[in-house]
Amino acid sequence: MDLNADMGEGFGSWSMGDDSALLEVVTSANVACGFHAGDPSIMRRVTAEAVERGVAIGAHVGYADKAGFGRRFVDIEPAALRDEVVYQIGALDAFARIAGDRVRYVKPHGALYNTIGRDVDQAGAVVAAVAAYDKTLPVLGLPGSEWLRLAAEAGLTVVHEAFADRAYTPAGTLVSRRSPGAVLHDADEIALRCTAMASGQPIRDVDGGSLVVDAASICVHGDTPGAVEIARRVRAAVEGAGVTLRPFTG
Amino acid sequence: MDLNADMGEGFGSWSMGDDSALLEVVTSANVACGFHAGDPSIMRRVTAEAVERGVAIGAHVGYADKAGFGRRFVDIEPAALRDEVVYQIGALDAFARIAGDRVRYVKPHGALYNTIGRDVDQAGAVVAAVAAYDKTLPVLGLPGSEWLRLAAEAGLTVVHEAFADRAYTPAGTLVSRRSPGAVLHDADEIALRCTAMASGQPIRDVDGGSLVVDAASICVHGDTPGAVEIARRVRAAVEGAGVTLRPFTG
Amino acid sequence: MDLNADMGEGFGSWSMGDDSALLEVVTSANVACGFHAGDPSIMRRVTAEAVERGVAIGAHVGYADKAGFGRRFVDIEPAALRDEVVYQIGALDAFARIAGDRVRYVKPHGALYNTIGRDVDQAGAVVAAVAAYDKTLPVLGLPGSEWLRLAAEAGLTVVHEAFADRAYTPAGTLVSRRSPGAVLHDADEIALRCTAMASGQPIRDVDGGSLVVDAASICVHGDTPGAVEIARRVRAAVEGAGVTLRPFTG
Amino acid sequence: MDLNADMGEGFGSWSMGDDSALLEVVTSANVACGFHAGDPSIMRRVTAEAVERGVAIGAHVGYADKAGFGRRFVDIEPAALRDEVVYQIGALDAFARIAGDRVRYVKPHGALYNTIGRDVDQAGAVVAAVAAYDKTLPVLGLPGSEWLRLAAEAGLTVVHEAFADRAYTPAGTLVSRRSPGAVLHDADEIALRCTAMASGQPIRDVDGGSLVVDAASICVHGDTPGAVEIARRVRAAVEGAGVTLRPFTG
Repeated sequence: MDLNADMGEGFGSWSMGDDSALLEVVTSANVACGFHAGDPSIMRRVTAEAVERGVAIGAHVGYADKAGFGRRFVDIEPAALRDEVVYQIGALDAFARIAGDRVRYVKPHGALYNTIGRDVDQAGAVVAAVAAYDKTLPVLGLPGSEWLRLAAEAGLTVVHEAFADRAYTPAGTLVSRRSPGAVLHDADEIALRCTAMASGQPIRDVDGGSLVVDAASICVHGDTPGAVEIARRVRAAVEGAGVTLRPFTG
Repeated sequence: MDLNADMGEGFGSWSMGDDSALLEVVTSANVACGFHAGDPSIMRRVTAEAVERGVAIGAHVGYADKAGFGRRFVDIEPAALRDEVVYQIGALDAFARIAGDRVRYVKPHGALYNTIGRDVDQAGAVVAAVAAYDKTLPVLGLPGSEWLRLAAEAGLTVVHEAFADRAYTPAGTLVSRRSPGAVLHDADEIALRCTAMASGQPIRDVDGGSLVVDAASICVHGDTPGAVEIARRVRAAVEGAGVTLRPFTG
Repeated sequence: MDLNADMGEGFGSWSMGDDSALLEVVTSANVACGFHAGDPSIMRRVTAEAVERGVAIGAHVGYADKAGFGRRFVDIEPAALRDEVVYQIGALDAFARIAGDRVRYVKPHGALYNTIGRDVDQAGAVVAAVAAYDKTLPVLGLPGSEWLRLAAEAGLTVVHEAFADRAYTPAGTLVSRRSPGAVLHDADEIALRCTAMASGQPIRDVDGGSLVVDAASICVHGDTPGAVEIARRVRAAVEGAGVTLRPFTG
Repeated sequence: MDLNADMGEGFGSWSMGDDSALLEVVTSANVACGFHAGDPSIMRRVTAEAVERGVAIGAHVGYADKAGFGRRFVDIEPAALRDEVVYQIGALDAFARIAGDRVRYVKPHGALYNTIGRDVDQAGAVVAAVAAYDKTLPVLGLPGSEWLRLAAEAGLTVVHEAFADRAYTPAGTLVSRRSPGAVLHDADEIALRCTAMASGQPIRDVDGGSLVVDAASICVHGDTPGAVEIARRVRAAVEGAGVTLRPFTG
């Protein structure tokens, strides 16, 4: 099992999250590429430290919108989006190479992640970018998303992720954030649930039913001190259950 | 002999110069990387067309200053500058690779070009970026610049360029733009002078003396329709003198 | 009758349209405020020249998206949009005041203009911005838009505009740009139609019927040399028909 | 006596300092205007809260450089700088007006502050901006700076500020940050020194001599939790000595 988290989300004099602490916990780092967050120096530091720790580097590509932190849908034409994604992967790959490794996967961020779950045009644009850059790059996302469906069609390796702190419907999709109980906050519950998912055991869905979540990676959050602590608990619990954590990229 | 020109200097809905026309004339394209000018879609188009025409792709790296078109000195710390240059080269290289080639050289733009002619710290930062990204990438610049001196020290291949439309001092340096006669405007004179430089013949310096300019590439301008016409004249004259034009990168 | 056009749409070293030529033709200038286009020096020049010529200055507010020229919908939260609009009006007003006048009206640009035609939340945000800044500022838009409906509800003065080169449906709305014949290109036809609209005479709708367009201002385009020439023809024709052109702001 | 501090220095999802806590302590707020830091929503919140608390709003104008937080010198042409400063003051003034007040003074930020201490061209540009916008706006700065000299020449009201935590030379200038002892860290010492400055008493200069600092405002820092605590100590000490704190703008 793999643990992934967003990283490198500071910008200039502004910081966000504790990248170093998080790199001790996760096995895959979704590194911001300077469009929604991040800057060249942060990208250098995070990639260098990721390589030192054996953490896989993923390109966390997003809309070019620092003011909105990539959380606002932008109705950008697919061809322009494709080129923006190529640009971001290439820029991050430069730092990954300097650090002695490569970008190992691609995971879109925020509003782009949500949009390409259902929007065929933008999903196709991101797939086209990855396929053009490197057909061997796996892509990380939600089962059932347009993004993974089109990626598979294009011959890319698709990897399913689960969310450590999100409630699931009986159908295996995420409960909308607008619904009560969509986000879990109890560290013990989150750790227990991750242990189950990592071991192939069922979890409870939002209606109390039993659900086996199909995922090769679990996404944990890291943008608050509390979140890092939860991530640590998740790691300890999963490893305590005898599951080895390592990058899904192998 | 090689002819190089700045290219891809539009941004979004704004255009500058006629990249397609210029790509018919030059053998090396200094492609803006989105910091002082350019955007991902322009980078894709220019690199694709450059590869089609056999024009070598160079990373035209600059300060992150679109409002100033990279023409304003920015007192950025060397480590941050180094990282910004790595980022730009990597982003452009992604498009070059997709087009079937690679970034073949690095030439700084505008105020960065001028600054690293004499500023050891910023020159060292750009050299460090190139060396870290790819030690085999040649760098293009003025003989006598700190930039080329430090690049050579770092083991990079340095390539001298001449300017088609600039007056030279007897010492072989450029006459300051603030001095009268610093910039040539007559197309015939420019073409004649380029033919001399391309053939290893001396030109007249600003004092009327004879000067042999040592250069493997001549920089022509392309940001006005008139400039493209001058570039065409230069190419025709140089080829008419029996000199083969091809990328200095071989 | 008033003629309005978009202006000040350059950025740094990039130019767009011929502001000076257009300021000789129109009576109201929609001046970009630095978010989708424009920069402080362009704003200063355009406002100064507008005041010299007696052209009314309008704040052409847009999404903060220079790369997309404000033509991409951005799903920004209404409160943030409201604040961005206040910011833009205030910045332009500074230059209008320095030039001896004031911002006289507000007209949103591009995707924002289109969005607030129907999106109540974003329309309400722009209305709230204008109302907070200056309740006496008129707003310019399409009859039937949410933008004007909410502006009127908020007690703002609403002003209807017509488009010189757009086909109309029998219901008086614009024919979608995706439909054939949506945009007129013939200068004579455009001039004739504007003369009719300025004189209170009916024009032909897209189905050949007769339609009286209710507008106090006609929007002409200016971002191409040909467009300026059409704008001149419109002005000459309208004035030739005995209609006085002056700012709708009085 | 007045206490001033930098404020509104977050950007989008990134925060910096605790504006609300600081607004309880100071009497003048240097509010970032969106160029080196800040954004429209932060500007609205800070100005609204400042007006509620009776804190004077100052335009903290800076270079357009969020990546560098305005701490890097930019060799921008004076005319462009002047226009950028006008733009920033106008934008902030919009929020100040909405909150029921006005921008009450101008204080440049970071590298711009340092540059116009000695650079006549850029200092003149900032002075020209303030004078063009509103000749009655006071400007805040260091005694002996070009900025205040030219401002006085232009008929602006100049206001001297002192720094709570900086060592002074016998000549009354700041000890360079590169020298040992340039910055004071002990809260008691800082509070004592501010009390002396606020009471017209001499302080110790860096050589141990006695120095009366001429200032109508003392600048305290607020970008760290510790800094807010020091600012509180300064306020308590100064008020404890019987000095009334209120905006220098009266």
